[in-house]
Amino acid sequence: MKSILIVGIGTGNPEHLTIQAINALNRADLLLIPDKGADKADLAQLRRDIVRRYVTNPATRTVEFSPPARDPKTSDYAERVADWHGELARQFGGLLDRHLLEGGVAAFLVWGDPGLYDSTIRIFERLRAEAPAAYRLEIIAGITSIQALTAAHGIALNRVGEPVHVTTGRQLLSGDRHGDTVVMLDGQTAFAELDADVDIFWGAYLGTPDQILVAGRLSAVREQIIATRKAARERHGWIMDIYLLRARD
Amino acid sequence: MKSILIVGIGTGNPEHLTIQAINALNRADLLLIPDKGADKADLAQLRRDIVRRYVTNPATRTVEFSPPARDPKTSDYAERVADWHGELARQFGGLLDRHLLEGGVAAFLVWGDPGLYDSTIRIFERLRAEAPAAYRLEIIAGITSIQALTAAHGIALNRVGEPVHVTTGRQLLSGDRHGDTVVMLDGQTAFAELDADVDIFWGAYLGTPDQILVAGRLSAVREQIIATRKAARERHGWIMDIYLLRARD
Repeated sequence: MKSILIVGIGTGNPEHLTIQAINALNRADLLLIPDKGADKADLAQLRRDIVRRYVTNPATRTVEFSPPARDPKTSDYAERVADWHGELARQFGGLLDRHLLEGGVAAFLVWGDPGLYDSTIRIFERLRAEAPAAYRLEIIAGITSIQALTAAHGIALNRVGEPVHVTTGRQLLSGDRHGDTVVMLDGQTAFAELDADVDIFWGAYLGTPDQILVAGRLSAVREQIIATRKAARERHGWIMDIYLLRARD
Repeated sequence: MKSILIVGIGTGNPEHLTIQAINALNRADLLLIPDKGADKADLAQLRRDIVRRYVTNPATRTVEFSPPARDPKTSDYAERVADWHGELARQFGGLLDRHLLEGGVAAFLVWGDPGLYDSTIRIFERLRAEAPAAYRLEIIAGITSIQALTAAHGIALNRVGEPVHVTTGRQLLSGDRHGDTVVMLDGQTAFAELDADVDIFWGAYLGTPDQILVAGRLSAVREQIIATRKAARERHGWIMDIYLLRARD
């Protein structure tokens, strides 16, 4: 059996690492770091910085790999994701076959928290469905972009005794909003279409020195966010952003 | 002006502290630690352990205080909370007057994340409404019980591309459930009333050596959770628990 640590590393600030995460990285024989290509080179660099800063175990080795992209030719969303998870499962299985001995410990460094809009846990569920005794999983929580967003804006996520909904840009376009709503993975700027009197708390590159924040009544700041987002995306080659929509009292 | 650091310290595991939180505690002249009475003495002890383990700045002083309780005689929920926040604001203002010089830095240690079902940010909003120039706020994110729950169960919080709703026991009793739903602050075991074919992932004392987990189809494990919860509450004198309700496919 091999032990797999799926370690949340927070959202871009190396100081988001927990002591638990640092100890997990130092327990690992092997660290697996995805390199998502030139567009997100700064993200790969940030992971390398985290390893350099915190990993003191001389026996820990690092292997970088290039994860496959989703196939845009598959039009159905669920099928596209399932195919992609299948490819990743084969890749992860192969990497662990080649680079980790039986009884060894490998750690995957995951942005944010492994439980929130990340595929790594699901990919190991697939691998374990095929070979239940091959892997033992351990999950280490990490600071999510939701928490980095509210901390940066200096606000609470929920209002007193009220719920919070967390959804995706795709779902928001289908009307999935229930009270105060956080929107993640919104490449389509779904807020641009929203006809509701809400405040928006928007943030991009949270936790990093490039962090950008905009907050205000949606009708007043919508164009500013769209323009800011477009310019930042061109400058960096990529963008990760998130926002909270809060109904006005 | 005084600087106030509201520092999330995670959910009971001292290793949940982030490097950012540890650095924040060591920047503080004053650490303010609530002592919520004998019932939760182990929680106060855990905060003291965190201070002892991580605070190396010899100039940092600790002051404990007993926060007021909510007045059960006030029947309206919003009014009861507002009154309680008013009392806490007076207490916090008084503590900072007595124990912190102008220009100093105080840190409040908050379980979980300061943005999620915690009052500290709101209390400082009140104080700043009265005296905007008196305090500068900084919020440090911490691991929430939601993350500790999913990590302990080894599951992802969301399903692929699907939303997640976070609510309270009180709200669940009013029917507030939208897809996969996390329920917090549920002293009334609202799940006991729920007539829905869902899986439940339940956890108590998450992150601590006393952690308890139960998972399964709600109809099958409901009575087990109620009995486990009751026995644990009697043994400890208090309980903090949380659960995820996931519709069965």
